Amino acid sequence: MMTVYGMKVSGNCYKLQLLLARLQRRYRWVEVDSARGETRSAEFLARNPNGKVPVLELEDGRVLTESNAILCFLAEGSTLMPEDRWQRALVLQWLFFEQYSHEPYIAVARFIRLFLPADHPRRGELPRLLERGHQALAVMEQHLAESRTFFVGDSPTIADIALFAYTHCAAEGGFDLSGYPAILTWLASVRAQPDFIAMASA
Amino acid sequence: MMTVYGMKVSGNCYKLQLLLARLQRRYRWVEVDSARGETRSAEFLARNPNGKVPVLELEDGRVLTESNAILCFLAEGSTLMPEDRWQRALVLQWLFFEQYSHEPYIAVARFIRLFLPADHPRRGELPRLLERGHQALAVMEQHLAESRTFFVGDSPTIADIALFAYTHCAAEGGFDLSGYPAILTWLASVRAQPDFIAMASA
Repeated sequence: MMTVYGMKVSGNCYKLQLLLARLQRRYRWVEVDSARGETRSAEFLARNPNGKVPVLELEDGRVLTESNAILCFLAEGSTLMPEDRWQRALVLQWLFFEQYSHEPYIAVARFIRLFLPADHPRRGELPRLLERGHQALAVMEQHLAESRTFFVGDSPTIADIALFAYTHCAAEGGFDLSGYPAILTWLASVRAQPDFIAMASA
Repeated sequence: MMTVYGMKVSGNCYKLQLLLARLQRRYRWVEVDSARGETRSAEFLARNPNGKVPVLELEDGRVLTESNAILCFLAEGSTLMPEDRWQRALVLQWLFFEQYSHEPYIAVARFIRLFLPADHPRRGELPRLLERGHQALAVMEQHLAESRTFFVGDSPTIADIALFAYTHCAAEGGFDLSGYPAILTWLASVRAQPDFIAMASA
């Protein structure tokens, strides 16, 4: 059986939980608490020298890192990763958008507000994170407002799973989603999918 | 013929030049100068609402953004994107590593040092960018030092192209690569590939 090393309150790890539930795949979960330095232990760094969760370990010991690369690997052959070459390209486009233009702002703002002390100096980063995060949300809103139910094609893909992970809890980072009606409708569509599971509360 | 909207001194755009040269594909290049605000024009934002280069436009008008998604799309069917499912997963792993753990530090340090005035307040970001950039270089060095010529498998893939783009000019960001012998050997291996082209000087 495969193993996921992850932290349940991390959106990047929640992506894998969502996908694996949807695919009805069995797996072993090993909780790794980065706040307690567990991603910097020698044992963990032997699996991922980059010191980040999630990590997927196959039964034969092969290891894959980077949440969105793991989504692509696991979703291959399912409807969540389209076969059509252009649609696949668009799924990858949104996965890279998520990691470059969305997660570094929306997830990091949430991390600072939820997990760091109220007087931590990183609070000073919040205005810029909010500004950039809202830019990402505006790009998503514009795309979804063009009569789209999901990000690519007519049915859910891993692009929706990846973007759902930190968008649905953006309020914890200080983002008010009420100005993004198309995003709110899309979040409800993702929640209505079969085998949907909620993220662990932080 | 397809069109690439890009900026020649941008490593993210250089990735596409490298790949297209290697594939011997013909294309039209439209230079877009983000320093002069050309990625924020209404015309450009209609192509990419996220306001970033590069953008690939197919002859029929379809548009794809995100440099690494474009690499995947264009390389499909060539040896630069392996057919094997596990090897593909590893290529994607390194592409996501590049955009999340490498480019935001190594490319941004280069941008600040090359393109912003010497008294610009963003210079204050450089110590943190250098620290994080060196972490990424250390991960690459460790991987390559395990007797590897290229990042995935025995021949070059788009993972090498993506990582080459900003690693080869890391010195412009203030990174001394002399402590990374495996990276230096790998850079030479990429430069020795057929149809290699140098990046435009900044």
